[in-house]
Amino acid sequence: MRLRGRKGIRENLEQQEDLVVLDPRQYKGKWASLFGNDKPIHVEFGMGKGQFISQMSYKHQDVNFIGVDMYDELIRRASEKGRNVWSAEDVVTPPNLKLALMNIENVEEVFEPGELERIYLNFSDPWPKTKHGRRRLTHPRFLDKYRTILNERGQIHFKTDSVSLFEFSLNAFSDYGLQMTNISLDLHREGLNEEFVMTEYETKFVGQGIKIHRCEVIVGQEALSEYKVERLKKYGM
Amino acid sequence: MRLRGRKGIRENLEQQEDLVVLDPRQYKGKWASLFGNDKPIHVEFGMGKGQFISQMSYKHQDVNFIGVDMYDELIRRASEKGRNVWSAEDVVTPPNLKLALMNIENVEEVFEPGELERIYLNFSDPWPKTKHGRRRLTHPRFLDKYRTILNERGQIHFKTDSVSLFEFSLNAFSDYGLQMTNISLDLHREGLNEEFVMTEYETKFVGQGIKIHRCEVIVGQEALSEYKVERLKKYGM
Ligand SMILES: C[S@@+](CC[C@H](N)C(=O)[O-])C[C@H]1O[C@@H](n2cnc3c(N)ncnc32)[C@H](O)[C@@H]1O
Ligand SMILES: C[S@@+](CC[C@H](N)C(=O)[O-])C[C@H]1O[C@@H](n2cnc3c(N)ncnc32)[C@H](O)[C@@H]1O
Repeated sequence: MRLRGRKGIRENLEQQEDLVVLDPRQYKGKWASLFGNDKPIHVEFGMGKGQFISQMSYKHQDVNFIGVDMYDELIRRASEKGRNVWSAEDVVTPPNLKLALMNIENVEEVFEPGELERIYLNFSDPWPKTKHGRRRLTHPRFLDKYRTILNERGQIHFKTDSVSLFEFSLNAFSDYGLQMTNISLDLHREGLNEEFVMTEYETKFVGQGIKIHRCEVIVGQEALSEYKVERLKKYGM
Repeated sequence: MRLRGRKGIRENLEQQEDLVVLDPRQYKGKWASLFGNDKPIHVEFGMGKGQFISQMSYKHQDVNFIGVDMYDELIRRASEKGRNVWSAEDVVTPPNLKLALMNIENVEEVFEPGELERIYLNFSDPWPKTKHGRRRLTHPRFLDKYRTILNERGQIHFKTDSVSLFEFSLNAFSDYGLQMTNISLDLHREGLNEEFVMTEYETKFVGQGIKIHRCEVIVGQEALSEYKVERLKKYGM
């Protein structure tokens, strides 16, 4: 029987200490020991119902994943999804997945400098009004935070349906002096791209024929060196 | 009476020495003396029928403009347009406009290093097949040439309707390590933008409701320094 109401949800989450982290600040600098290994850590900021992060954790078991959202109810739904992806029985603890309840504004209180290797931003709220520009998760004030918590191999992978958010973000990454690569204005142009795990929003938008925009942003110095080697090959120059 | 046929067109062009340059190689390093002054030189590579370059020359008389195309017939049509924009009488010599017959492949034989201040690429042929990628005017092998002939204040201003060419070009500029700014995925989103003179192709596409993509690319060091000051203001950081 599933508990109802706000209090019910909170109690439910408290019973899931193996998967749900209700006070992520306590793990600052200690996420590797929480996972019990030194695998790279990939985080999705604003995971919603958790389809993407759950499937990623199952598909890439050489990586530790953290799904972040600020709503109890979404953490609960993601916790179901996370267990279900790993086993139909609903009782399994995914070994490389944690779901953290927090506000992305506070990432620097939750992660040590260099603690993360990749940040996924999937279908972040577009905040279309100019006066709300600072709330967009790709605003340079967030890029400042991300750069701090990412390591030498750090990257940001961003996808969205929103033309205006994508436009804003390309300018923000570029103005911020970050190297972009694999920019796509229509991710699924040649049919669904199996390489990329889809999110809930993505599944919905693709079904409506809406184009998905995507880009990768190279943040860490080591990632940048590797990218430069790739780039030379790319144009056959 | 207008002459007809290939031969007729060539004769027509030969009679327009004040405006049309049939052998632009002879002016390599000498464009300033051809214009008779030291104003910055802006070039459109692939001007087609010349609406853009003609209107720009009339609108910005503090700049010298060169319209480039490789077809006699287009140079002829642009020459009519160029004179008409300056005067309904069709006999005027626009003082700050030249139309050069040449292949863009050969820009380095026509312009000295640093001789140009801005390159406009408007609705360049998209060459959609992957195997033709090297023909796209934003391919890094062209960027190499552009970087040579642009000066310290050099920029490239690029617009296109083609989603695939724009995507390719964003990646090319980015991979090439050039600073992009003012990226727009829908230039006329808020109604026709008077600031930007329209080209023939643009007029046609906008009439069909097709979105125009645009970006500016900062090439020269002095332009880069100026841009960095602007950028600080932009995000209110
Ligand atoms: C539009 S949804 C996208 C969900 C999911 N990534 C997808 O693609 O299906 C954005 C999510 O980000 C979360 N979110 C927005 N701002 C946040 C913040 N400051 N801190 C934590 N989560 C946030 C919202 O609660 C919401 O679940
Ligand atoms: C698609 S049209 C665009 C014309 C104009 N810029 C506009 O927006 O209306 C492209 C033009 O580029 C010219 N062009 C393409 N490749 C060229 C080259 N290698 N050298 C010179 N001109 C070229 C073509 O002749 C054509 O007029």
